[in-house]
Amino acid sequence: MNDQQKQLIFEQAKQWILEAGERIRAKMHEPFVIETKSTPDDLVTEIDQNTEQFFAKKIRETYPDHRVLGEEGFGDDLKDLDGIVWIVDPIDGTMNFVHQKQNFAISVGIYKDGIGEIGFIYDVMGDVLYQSKRGEGAYKNDHKLSPLSSDIVLEKSIVGLNAFWATENPRVDKRGMQELIRKVRGTRSYGSAALEFAYVVEGNMDAYVTMRLAPWDVAAGIVLLSEVGGITTKADGTEVDMLTTNSIIASNRAIHREIIDKHIELKK
Amino acid sequence: MNDQQKQLIFEQAKQWILEAGERIRAKMHEPFVIETKSTPDDLVTEIDQNTEQFFAKKIRETYPDHRVLGEEGFGDDLKDLDGIVWIVDPIDGTMNFVHQKQNFAISVGIYKDGIGEIGFIYDVMGDVLYQSKRGEGAYKNDHKLSPLSSDIVLEKSIVGLNAFWATENPRVDKRGMQELIRKVRGTRSYGSAALEFAYVVEGNMDAYVTMRLAPWDVAAGIVLLSEVGGITTKADGTEVDMLTTNSIIASNRAIHREIIDKHIELKK
Repeated sequence: MNDQQKQLIFEQAKQWILEAGERIRAKMHEPFVIETKSTPDDLVTEIDQNTEQFFAKKIRETYPDHRVLGEEGFGDDLKDLDGIVWIVDPIDGTMNFVHQKQNFAISVGIYKDGIGEIGFIYDVMGDVLYQSKRGEGAYKNDHKLSPLSSDIVLEKSIVGLNAFWATENPRVDKRGMQELIRKVRGTRSYGSAALEFAYVVEGNMDAYVTMRLAPWDVAAGIVLLSEVGGITTKADGTEVDMLTTNSIIASNRAIHREIIDKHIELKK
Repeated sequence: MNDQQKQLIFEQAKQWILEAGERIRAKMHEPFVIETKSTPDDLVTEIDQNTEQFFAKKIRETYPDHRVLGEEGFGDDLKDLDGIVWIVDPIDGTMNFVHQKQNFAISVGIYKDGIGEIGFIYDVMGDVLYQSKRGEGAYKNDHKLSPLSSDIVLEKSIVGLNAFWATENPRVDKRGMQELIRKVRGTRSYGSAALEFAYVVEGNMDAYVTMRLAPWDVAAGIVLLSEVGGITTKADGTEVDMLTTNSIIASNRAIHREIIDKHIELKK
Protein backbone atom coordinates (compact mmCIF):
# COMPACT_ATOMS: atom_id res chain seq x y z
CA MET A 1 0.00 0.00 0.00
CA ASN A 2 1.78 3.15 -1.14
CA ASP A 3 0.72 6.59 0.02
CA GLN A 4 -1.53 7.19 -2.94
CA GLN A 5 -3.33 3.86 -2.54
CA LYS A 6 -3.67 4.47 1.18
CA GLN A 7 -5.19 7.89 0.55
CA LEU A 8 -7.70 6.42 -1.91
CA ILE A 9 -8.73 3.65 0.48
CA PHE A 10 -8.94 6.17 3.33
CA GLU A 11 -11.24 8.47 1.37
CA GLN A 12 -13.37 5.57 0.16
CA ALA A 13 -13.74 4.11 3.67
CA LYS A 14 -14.64 7.52 5.07
CA GLN A 15 -17.37 8.00 2.46
CA TRP A 16 -18.87 4.59 3.24
CA ILE A 17 -18.76 5.19 6.99
CA LEU A 18 -20.54 8.52 6.69
CA GLU A 19 -23.11 6.93 4.37
CA ALA A 20 -23.66 4.02 6.77
CA GLY A 21 -24.06 6.49 9.64
CA GLU A 22 -26.64 8.44 7.66
CA ARG A 23 -28.59 5.22 7.05
CA ILE A 24 -28.51 4.28 10.72
CA ARG A 25 -29.73 7.71 11.80
CA ALA A 26 -32.54 7.56 9.24
CA LYS A 27 -33.52 4.09 10.45
CA MET A 28 -33.62 5.20 14.08
CA HIS A 29 -35.92 8.06 13.23
CA GLU A 30 -38.38 5.84 11.34
CA PRO A 31 -41.24 5.25 13.80
CA PHE A 32 -42.64 2.55 11.53
CA VAL A 33 -39.60 0.32 11.88
CA ILE A 34 -39.29 0.74 15.61
CA GLU A 35 -42.98 0.12 16.27
CA THR A 36 -43.17 -3.07 14.24
CA LYS A 37 -40.08 -4.62 15.81
CA SER A 38 -40.90 -6.83 18.74
CA THR A 39 -37.99 -5.47 20.81
CA PRO A 40 -35.22 -2.89 20.44
CA ASP A 41 -32.82 -5.85 20.33
CA ASP A 42 -34.34 -6.91 17.03
CA LEU A 43 -33.82 -3.44 15.63
CA VAL A 44 -30.17 -3.38 16.59
CA THR A 45 -29.69 -6.85 15.13
CA GLU A 46 -31.21 -5.75 11.84
CA ILE A 47 -29.18 -2.53 11.64
CA ASP A 48 -26.01 -4.32 12.76
CA GLN A 49 -26.37 -6.94 10.04
CA ASN A 50 -27.45 -4.52 7.31
CA THR A 51 -24.54 -2.23 8.06
CA GLU A 52 -21.96 -4.99 8.00
CA GLN A 53 -23.45 -6.31 4.75
CA PHE A 54 -23.25 -2.82 3.32
CA PHE A 55 -19.52 -2.64 4.10
CA ALA A 56 -18.78 -6.20 2.96
CA LYS A 57 -20.54 -5.65 -0.37
CA LYS A 58 -18.85 -2.30 -1.04
CA ILE A 59 -15.43 -3.62 -0.13
CA ARG A 60 -15.76 -6.76 -2.29
CA GLU A 61 -17.05 -4.82 -5.26
CA THR A 62 -14.37 -2.19 -5.06
CA TYR A 63 -11.40 -4.16 -3.72
CA PRO A 64 -11.89 -7.82 -4.63
CA ASP A 65 -8.48 -8.74 -3.20
CA HIS A 66 -9.19 -7.22 0.23
CA ARG A 67 -10.70 -9.32 3.00
CA VAL A 68 -13.22 -8.45 5.72
CA LEU A 69 -13.29 -9.40 9.39
CA GLY A 70 -16.57 -8.53 11.11
CA GLU A 71 -18.78 -9.37 14.04
CA GLU A 72 -21.95 -10.31 12.20
CA GLY A 73 -20.60 -13.05 9.94
CA PHE A 74 -20.70 -11.35 6.54
CA GLY A 75 -16.93 -11.15 6.39
CA ASP A 76 -14.35 -13.81 5.61
CA ASP A 77 -13.20 -16.65 7.80
CA LEU A 78 -9.67 -15.46 8.47
CA LYS A 79 -6.78 -17.66 9.56
CA ASP A 80 -4.15 -14.96 9.01
CA LEU A 81 -3.89 -11.22 8.41
CA ASP A 82 -2.01 -11.39 5.10
CA GLY A 83 -2.78 -8.67 2.60
CA ILE A 84 -5.32 -5.96 3.27
CA VAL A 85 -8.00 -6.72 5.87
CA TRP A 86 -10.88 -4.46 6.85
CA ILE A 87 -11.88 -5.05 10.47
CA VAL A 88 -15.41 -3.75 10.91
CA ASP A 89 -17.76 -3.29 13.86
CA PRO A 90 -20.99 -1.92 12.41
CA ILE A 91 -22.39 -0.98 15.84
CA ASP A 92 -20.02 -0.85 18.77
CA GLY A 93 -21.94 -0.23 22.00
CA THR A 94 -25.07 -2.29 21.34
CA MET A 95 -26.48 -1.77 24.82
CA ASN A 96 -26.20 2.00 24.42
CA PHE A 97 -27.87 1.70 21.02
CA VAL A 98 -30.82 -0.12 22.59
CA HIS A 99 -31.17 1.86 25.84
CA GLN A 100 -29.86 5.29 24.94
CA LYS A 101 -30.24 5.54 21.16
CA GLN A 102 -26.86 7.28 21.21
CA ASN A 103 -23.28 6.73 22.38
CA PHE A 104 -22.55 3.95 19.88
CA ALA A 105 -20.04 3.93 17.05
CA ILE A 106 -19.05 2.43 13.72
CA SER A 107 -15.48 1.18 14.01
CA VAL A 108 -13.35 0.42 10.93
CA GLY A 109 -9.67 -0.52 11.06
CA ILE A 110 -7.78 -1.31 7.86
CA TYR A 111 -4.71 -3.48 8.29
CA LYS A 112 -1.99 -4.52 5.83
CA ASP A 113 -0.08 -7.69 6.69
CA GLY A 114 -1.16 -7.26 10.30
CA ILE A 115 -0.14 -3.63 10.61
CA GLY A 116 -2.85 -1.04 11.29
CA GLU A 117 -2.75 1.53 8.48
CA ILE A 118 -6.10 3.31 8.82
CA GLY A 119 -8.50 3.75 11.72
CA PHE A 120 -11.96 5.32 11.90
CA ILE A 121 -14.31 5.56 14.87
CA TYR A 122 -17.59 7.27 14.06
CA ASP A 123 -19.87 8.46 16.86
CA VAL A 124 -23.00 8.09 14.73
CA MET A 125 -25.55 10.16 16.66
CA GLY A 126 -22.99 12.80 17.70
CA ASP A 127 -21.75 12.94 14.08
CA VAL A 128 -18.12 12.97 15.26
CA LEU A 129 -15.53 11.13 13.16
CA TYR A 130 -12.18 10.17 14.67
CA GLN A 131 -9.81 9.38 11.79
CA SER A 132 -6.19 8.44 11.30
CA LYS A 133 -3.66 7.12 8.85
CA ARG A 134 -0.48 5.53 10.22
CA GLY A 135 2.26 8.12 10.52
CA GLU A 136 0.00 11.07 9.76
CA GLY A 137 -1.63 11.86 13.10
CA ALA A 138 -5.15 11.49 14.44
CA TYR A 139 -8.05 13.83 13.79
CA LYS A 140 -11.38 14.50 15.47
CA ASN A 141 -13.43 15.63 12.49
CA ASP A 142 -10.98 18.11 10.89
CA HIS A 143 -9.20 19.00 14.10
CA LYS A 144 -5.74 17.45 14.51
CA LEU A 145 -5.38 15.95 17.98
CA SER A 146 -2.35 16.76 20.12
CA PRO A 147 0.09 14.10 21.25
CA LEU A 148 -0.86 12.79 24.70
CA SER A 149 0.78 14.59 27.60
CA SER A 150 3.75 12.74 29.07
CA ASP A 151 3.34 14.72 32.27
CA ILE A 152 0.82 12.56 34.07
CA VAL A 153 0.83 10.16 37.00
CA LEU A 154 -1.63 7.39 37.74
CA GLU A 155 -2.88 9.11 40.90
CA LYS A 156 -4.12 12.04 38.81
CA SER A 157 -5.46 9.99 35.91
CA ILE A 158 -8.97 9.27 34.73
CA VAL A 159 -9.32 5.64 33.72
CA GLY A 160 -12.09 4.00 31.71
CA LEU A 161 -12.99 0.84 33.58
CA ASN A 162 -16.25 -0.99 33.91
CA ALA A 163 -17.19 -1.69 37.54
CA PHE A 164 -17.77 -5.33 36.56
CA TRP A 165 -13.99 -5.97 36.71
CA ALA A 166 -14.01 -4.95 40.38
CA THR A 167 -16.38 -7.84 41.11
CA GLU A 168 -15.70 -11.57 41.13
CA ASN A 169 -15.12 -12.52 37.47
CA PRO A 170 -13.34 -15.22 35.49
CA ARG A 171 -10.58 -13.07 33.97
CA VAL A 172 -8.83 -10.81 36.46
CA ASP A 173 -8.28 -10.64 40.21
CA LYS A 174 -10.80 -8.11 41.49
CA ARG A 175 -8.51 -6.92 44.29
CA GLY A 176 -5.96 -5.41 41.90
CA MET A 177 -8.78 -3.71 40.03
CA GLN A 178 -10.20 -2.32 43.27
CA GLU A 179 -6.79 -0.94 44.22
CA LEU A 180 -6.53 0.69 40.81
CA ILE A 181 -9.97 2.28 41.26
CA ARG A 182 -8.92 3.64 44.65
CA LYS A 183 -5.59 4.92 43.36
CA VAL A 184 -6.69 6.92 40.32
CA ARG A 185 -8.36 10.31 40.38
CA GLY A 186 -11.52 8.87 38.88
CA THR A 187 -12.99 6.13 36.73
CA ARG A 188 -15.51 6.43 33.94
CA SER A 189 -17.57 3.90 32.01
CA TYR A 190 -19.31 4.81 28.75
CA GLY A 191 -20.37 1.41 27.37
CA SER A 192 -18.69 1.52 23.95
CA ALA A 193 -15.15 0.19 23.58
CA ALA A 194 -14.61 2.18 20.39
CA LEU A 195 -15.72 5.43 22.02
CA GLU A 196 -13.65 4.73 25.14
CA PHE A 197 -10.64 4.31 22.86
CA ALA A 198 -11.55 7.59 21.18
CA TYR A 199 -11.73 9.35 24.55
CA VAL A 200 -8.22 8.15 25.39
CA VAL A 201 -7.06 9.34 21.96
CA GLU A 202 -8.37 12.83 22.60
CA GLY A 203 -7.04 12.90 26.16
CA ASN A 204 -10.44 12.88 27.93
CA MET A 205 -9.30 9.73 29.71
CA ASP A 206 -5.73 8.59 30.30
CA ALA A 207 -6.33 4.86 29.93
CA TYR A 208 -9.00 2.30 29.12
CA VAL A 209 -8.79 -1.07 30.87
CA THR A 210 -10.93 -4.06 29.98
CA MET A 211 -10.59 -7.82 30.02
CA ARG A 212 -12.30 -9.11 26.89
CA LEU A 213 -12.69 -7.47 23.52
CA ALA A 214 -13.00 -8.81 19.98
CA PRO A 215 -10.70 -7.59 17.18
CA TRP A 216 -13.44 -5.38 15.67
CA ASP A 217 -13.83 -3.59 19.02
CA VAL A 218 -10.20 -2.43 19.00
CA ALA A 219 -8.82 -2.48 15.43
CA ALA A 220 -9.53 1.18 14.68
CA GLY A 221 -8.80 2.42 18.19
CA ILE A 222 -5.31 0.92 18.18
CA VAL A 223 -4.38 2.85 15.01
CA LEU A 224 -5.82 6.11 16.32
CA LEU A 225 -4.20 5.81 19.74
CA SER A 226 -0.79 5.05 18.27
CA GLU A 227 -0.97 8.30 16.29
CA VAL A 228 -1.11 10.42 19.44
CA GLY A 229 1.70 8.48 21.09
CA GLY A 230 -0.44 6.09 23.13
CA ILE A 231 -0.05 2.34 23.38
CA THR A 232 -2.38 -0.66 23.31
CA THR A 233 -1.41 -4.09 24.61
CA LYS A 234 -3.04 -7.08 26.19
CA ALA A 235 -3.42 -6.77 29.95
CA ASP A 236 -0.19 -8.74 30.46
CA GLY A 237 1.70 -6.22 28.34
CA THR A 238 2.07 -8.46 25.27
CA GLU A 239 0.96 -7.65 21.76
CA VAL A 240 -2.73 -7.70 20.81
CA ASP A 241 -3.66 -10.62 18.54
CA MET A 242 -6.06 -9.38 15.86
CA LEU A 243 -7.45 -12.90 15.18
CA THR A 244 -8.87 -13.55 18.64
CA THR A 245 -10.35 -11.87 21.71
CA ASN A 246 -7.94 -9.99 23.95
CA SER A 247 -7.73 -8.30 27.30
CA ILE A 248 -6.86 -4.65 26.61
CA ILE A 249 -4.91 -1.81 28.21
CA ALA A 250 -5.14 1.22 25.90
CA SER A 251 -3.23 3.97 27.56
CA ASN A 252 -1.04 6.99 27.79
CA ARG A 253 2.49 5.53 27.86
CA ALA A 254 3.29 7.32 31.11
CA ILE A 255 0.98 5.06 33.13
CA HIS A 256 0.73 1.90 31.00
CA ARG A 257 3.45 -0.11 32.73
CA GLU A 258 2.30 0.81 36.23
CA ILE A 259 -1.26 -0.36 35.55
CA ILE A 260 -0.01 -3.72 34.28
CA ASP A 261 2.70 -4.31 36.86
CA LYS A 262 0.85 -3.16 39.96
CA HIS A 263 -2.83 -3.79 39.28
CA ILE A 264 -3.43 -6.63 36.83
CA GLU A 265 -3.38 -10.21 37.99
CA LEU A 266 -4.90 -12.28 35.20
CA LYS A 267 -6.53 -15.61 35.92
CA LYS A 268 -5.45 -18.59 33.85
CA MET B 1 -45.54 31.12 44.53
CA ASN B 2 -48.50 31.23 42.18
CA ASP B 3 -48.28 30.02 38.60
CA GLN B 4 -47.52 33.43 37.20
CA GLN B 5 -44.73 34.08 39.72
CA LYS B 6 -43.35 30.63 39.08
CA GLN B 7 -43.32 31.26 35.34
CA LEU B 8 -41.50 34.56 35.81
CA ILE B 9 -38.88 33.03 38.07
CA PHE B 10 -38.50 30.09 35.66
CA GLU B 11 -37.90 32.36 32.68
CA GLN B 12 -35.52 34.56 34.65
CA ALA B 13 -33.50 31.60 35.91
CA LYS B 14 -33.32 30.12 32.44
CA GLN B 15 -31.99 33.36 31.00
CA TRP B 16 -29.28 33.60 33.69
CA ILE B 17 -28.27 29.96 33.20
CA LEU B 18 -27.88 30.38 29.45
CA GLU B 19 -25.92 33.59 30.02
CA ALA B 20 -23.66 31.90 32.58
CA GLY B 21 -23.10 29.02 30.15
CA GLU B 22 -22.15 31.44 27.40
CA ARG B 23 -19.61 33.07 29.73
CA ILE B 24 -18.09 29.72 30.69
CA ARG B 25 -17.75 28.66 27.06
CA ALA B 26 -16.11 31.98 26.19
CA LYS B 27 -13.71 31.63 29.10
CA MET B 28 -12.70 28.13 28.08
CA HIS B 29 -11.90 29.31 24.59
CA GLU B 30 -9.69 32.17 25.80
CA PRO B 31 -6.14 30.88 25.39
CA PHE B 32 -4.84 33.83 27.41
CA VAL B 33 -6.66 32.81 30.57
CA ILE B 34 -5.77 29.17 30.32
CA GLU B 35 -2.11 29.80 29.63
CA THR B 36 -1.61 32.19 32.52
CA LYS B 37 -3.28 29.91 35.06
CA SER B 38 -0.85 27.70 36.87
CA THR B 39 -3.10 24.65 36.63
CA PRO B 40 -6.49 23.76 35.19
CA ASP B 41 -7.68 23.49 38.80
CA ASP B 42 -7.15 27.22 39.23
CA LEU B 43 -9.23 27.88 36.13
CA VAL B 44 -12.11 25.80 37.37
CA THR B 45 -11.92 27.48 40.76
CA GLU B 46 -12.10 30.89 39.14
CA ILE B 47 -14.99 29.99 36.86
CA ASP B 48 -16.82 28.16 39.65
CA GLN B 49 -16.60 31.17 41.94
CA ASN B 50 -17.38 33.75 39.25
CA THR B 51 -20.43 31.80 38.14
CA GLU B 52 -21.80 31.39 41.64
CA GLN B 53 -21.20 35.10 42.30
CA PHE B 54 -23.02 35.90 39.08
CA PHE B 55 -26.08 33.95 40.23
CA ALA B 56 -25.95 35.25 43.81
CA LYS B 57 -25.76 38.87 42.64
CA LYS B 58 -28.57 38.50 40.08
CA ILE B 59 -30.84 36.72 42.54
CA ARG B 60 -30.27 39.26 45.33
CA GLU B 61 -30.79 42.22 43.04
CA THR B 62 -33.96 40.80 41.50
CA TYR B 63 -35.45 38.86 44.40
CA PRO B 64 -34.15 40.36 47.65
CA ASP B 65 -36.37 38.04 49.71
CA HIS B 66 -35.03 34.84 48.10
CA ARG B 67 -32.06 33.01 49.56
CA VAL B 68 -29.17 31.16 47.91
CA LEU B 69 -27.52 27.87 48.80
CA GLY B 70 -24.32 27.20 46.87
CA GLU B 71 -21.08 25.29 46.91
CA GLU B 72 -18.65 28.17 46.66
CA GLY B 73 -19.72 30.20 49.67
CA PHE B 74 -21.36 33.19 48.01
CA GLY B 75 -24.80 32.07 49.14
CA ASP B 76 -26.48 32.33 52.51
CA ASP B 77 -25.82 30.30 55.61
CA LEU B 78 -29.07 28.37 55.74
CA LYS B 79 -30.52 26.69 58.81
CA ASP B 80 -33.88 26.00 57.18
CA LEU B 81 -35.55 26.00 53.77
CA ASP B 82 -38.28 28.49 54.56
CA GLY B 83 -39.38 30.74 51.72
CA ILE B 84 -37.78 30.57 48.29
CA VAL B 85 -34.28 29.11 48.10
CA TRP B 86 -32.13 28.82 44.98
CA ILE B 87 -29.80 25.83 45.24
CA VAL B 88 -26.96 26.37 42.79
CA ASP B 89 -24.02 24.32 41.57
CA PRO B 90 -22.12 26.55 39.15
CA ILE B 91 -20.00 23.65 37.81
CA ASP B 92 -21.10 20.12 38.57
CA GLY B 93 -18.48 17.64 37.34
CA THR B 94 -15.31 19.53 38.16
CA MET B 95 -13.02 16.65 37.24
CA ASN B 96 -14.62 16.45 33.80
CA PHE B 97 -14.24 20.21 33.46
CA VAL B 98 -10.52 19.94 34.15
CA HIS B 99 -9.71 16.75 32.22
CA GLN B 100 -12.28 16.72 29.45
CA LYS B 101 -13.34 20.34 29.05
CA GLN B 102 -16.86 18.97 28.58
CA ASN B 103 -19.45 16.79 30.36
CA PHE B 104 -20.05 19.27 33.19
CA ALA B 105 -23.24 21.12 34.05
CA ILE B 106 -24.78 24.11 35.76
CA SER B 107 -27.42 22.85 38.18
CA VAL B 108 -30.11 25.15 39.61
CA GLY B 109 -33.00 23.97 41.76
CA ILE B 110 -35.53 26.45 43.13
CA TYR B 111 -37.40 25.34 46.25
CA LYS B 112 -40.29 26.91 48.12
CA ASP B 113 -40.64 25.92 51.79
CA GLY B 114 -38.58 22.82 51.05
CA ILE B 115 -40.54 21.72 47.99
CA GLY B 116 -38.77 21.63 44.65
CA GLU B 117 -40.65 23.88 42.24
CA ILE B 118 -38.17 24.41 39.40
CA GLY B 119 -35.19 22.40 38.19
CA PHE B 120 -32.58 23.15 35.51
CA ILE B 121 -29.57 21.09 34.49
CA TYR B 122 -27.52 22.69 31.75
CA ASP B 123 -24.91 20.65 29.87
CA VAL B 124 -22.79 23.68 29.10
CA MET B 125 -20.54 22.44 26.28
CA GLY B 126 -23.27 20.30 24.71
CA ASP B 127 -25.68 23.26 24.99
CA VAL B 128 -28.47 20.98 26.23
CA LEU B 129 -30.88 22.34 28.84
CA TYR B 130 -32.99 19.98 30.94
CA GLN B 131 -35.82 22.01 32.46
CA SER B 132 -38.87 21.44 34.59
CA LYS B 133 -41.53 23.08 36.69
CA ARG B 134 -43.32 21.01 39.29
CA GLY B 135 -46.47 19.46 37.82
CA GLU B 136 -45.69 20.54 34.26
CA GLY B 137 -43.36 17.80 33.00
CA ALA B 138 -39.68 17.74 32.14
CA TYR B 139 -38.11 18.99 28.93
CA LYS B 140 -34.82 18.41 27.15
CA ASN B 141 -34.42 21.70 25.34
CA ASP B 142 -37.91 22.09 23.86
CA HIS B 143 -38.67 18.38 23.67
CA LYS B 144 -41.05 17.08 26.35
CA LEU B 145 -39.68 13.92 27.92
CA SER B 146 -41.87 10.82 28.23
CA PRO B 147 -42.78 9.31 31.59
CA LEU B 148 -40.31 6.57 32.52
CA SER B 149 -41.31 3.08 31.46
CA SER B 150 -42.82 0.98 34.23
CA ASP B 151 -42.00 -2.14 32.27
CA ILE B 152 -38.43 -2.74 33.44
CA VAL B 153 -36.65 -5.16 35.74
CA LEU B 154 -33.34 -4.68 37.49
CA GLU B 155 -31.69 -7.47 35.47
CA LYS B 156 -32.27 -5.51 32.26
CA SER B 157 -31.45 -2.08 33.68
CA ILE B 158 -28.54 0.26 33.11
CA VAL B 159 -27.41 1.79 36.39
CA GLY B 160 -25.13 4.78 36.92
CA LEU B 161 -22.69 3.73 39.61
CA ASN B 162 -19.10 4.73 40.19
CA ALA B 163 -16.80 1.73 40.56
CA PHE B 164 -15.45 3.30 43.75
CA TRP B 165 -18.50 2.04 45.68
CA ALA B 166 -17.53 -1.54 44.75
CA THR B 167 -14.26 -1.06 46.65
CA GLU B 168 -13.66 -0.80 50.39
CA ASN B 169 -15.14 2.55 51.42
CA PRO B 170 -16.52 4.20 54.55
CA ARG B 171 -20.16 4.46 53.47
CA VAL B 172 -21.56 1.26 52.00
CA ASP B 173 -20.80 -2.46 52.08
CA LYS B 174 -18.96 -3.19 48.86
CA ARG B 175 -20.37 -6.72 48.57
CA GLY B 176 -23.94 -5.51 48.01
CA MET B 177 -22.66 -3.06 45.42
CA GLN B 178 -20.72 -5.83 43.66
CA GLU B 179 -23.84 -8.01 43.57
CA LEU B 180 -25.78 -5.10 42.09
CA ILE B 181 -23.12 -4.62 39.41
CA ARG B 182 -23.28 -8.31 38.53
CA LYS B 183 -27.08 -8.35 38.49
CA VAL B 184 -27.82 -5.42 36.19
CA ARG B 185 -27.43 -5.39 32.44
CA GLY B 186 -24.71 -2.77 32.66
CA THR B 187 -23.28 0.09 34.70
CA ARG B 188 -22.16 3.49 33.51
CA SER B 189 -20.19 6.29 35.12
CA TYR B 190 -20.08 9.79 33.64
CA GLY B 191 -18.52 11.87 36.42
CA SER B 192 -21.23 14.52 36.86
CA ALA B 193 -24.05 13.89 39.33
CA ALA B 194 -26.27 16.45 37.63
CA LEU B 195 -25.79 14.86 34.21
CA GLU B 196 -26.29 11.36 35.62
CA PHE B 197 -29.61 12.57 37.05
CA ALA B 198 -30.45 14.00 33.63
CA TYR B 199 -29.69 10.67 31.95
CA VAL B 200 -32.08 8.91 34.32
CA VAL B 201 -34.68 11.59 33.58
CA GLU B 202 -34.44 10.96 29.84
CA GLY B 203 -34.39 7.18 30.31
CA ASN B 204 -30.78 6.63 29.16
CA MET B 205 -30.15 5.00 32.52
CA ASP B 206 -32.71 3.46 34.84
CA ALA B 207 -31.10 4.48 38.12
CA TYR B 208 -28.20 6.45 39.57
CA VAL B 209 -26.71 5.19 42.82
CA THR B 210 -24.16 7.11 44.87
CA MET B 211 -23.23 7.46 48.49
CA ARG B 212 -22.40 11.10 49.09
CA LEU B 213 -23.75 14.18 47.36
CA ALA B 214 -24.29 17.77 48.46
CA PRO B 215 -27.68 19.49 48.10
CA TRP B 216 -26.52 21.50 45.06
CA ASP B 217 -25.59 18.24 43.27
CA VAL B 218 -29.15 16.94 43.46
CA ALA B 219 -31.59 19.84 43.95
CA ALA B 220 -32.42 20.30 40.27
CA GLY B 221 -32.25 16.61 39.40
CA ILE B 222 -34.83 15.68 42.02
CA VAL B 223 -37.38 18.11 40.51
CA LEU B 224 -36.71 16.90 36.96
CA LEU B 225 -36.85 13.22 37.85
CA SER B 226 -40.09 13.60 39.74
CA GLU B 227 -41.69 15.09 36.61
CA VAL B 228 -41.16 11.90 34.60
CA GLY B 229 -42.43 9.69 37.44
CA GLY B 230 -39.06 8.80 38.92
CA ILE B 231 -38.10 8.92 42.59
CA THR B 232 -35.12 10.15 44.59
CA THR B 233 -34.40 9.06 48.16
CA LYS B 234 -31.45 8.51 50.41
CA ALA B 235 -29.90 5.06 50.03
CA ASP B 236 -31.93 3.80 53.00
CA GLY B 237 -35.15 4.85 51.28
CA THR B 238 -35.82 7.90 53.47
CA GLU B 239 -36.32 11.44 52.30
CA VAL B 240 -33.39 13.52 51.03
CA ASP B 241 -32.41 16.35 53.41
CA MET B 242 -31.63 19.45 51.38
CA LEU B 243 -29.54 21.02 54.19
CA THR B 244 -26.85 18.32 54.34
CA THR B 245 -25.02 15.70 52.28
CA ASN B 246 -26.99 12.56 51.40
CA SER B 247 -26.56 9.15 49.92
CA ILE B 248 -28.73 9.01 46.80
CA ILE B 249 -30.81 6.52 44.85
CA ALA B 250 -32.39 8.35 41.89
CA SER B 251 -34.37 5.82 40.00
CA ASN B 252 -37.19 4.49 37.93
CA ARG B 253 -39.80 3.49 40.54
CA ALA B 254 -39.97 -0.06 39.18
CA ILE B 255 -36.48 -0.91 40.52
CA HIS B 256 -35.99 1.59 43.36
CA ARG B 257 -37.12 -0.63 46.22
CA GLU B 258 -35.19 -3.68 45.01
CA ILE B 259 -31.92 -1.74 44.84
CA ILE B 260 -32.39 -0.50 48.40
CA ASP B 261 -33.69 -3.72 49.94
CA LYS B 262 -31.33 -6.16 48.26
CA HIS B 263 -28.12 -4.27 47.56
CA ILE B 264 -27.55 -1.42 49.97
CA GLU B 265 -26.02 -2.01 53.36
CA LEU B 266 -25.00 1.35 54.75
CA LYS B 267 -22.22 1.65 57.30
CA LYS B 268 -22.92 3.63 60.43
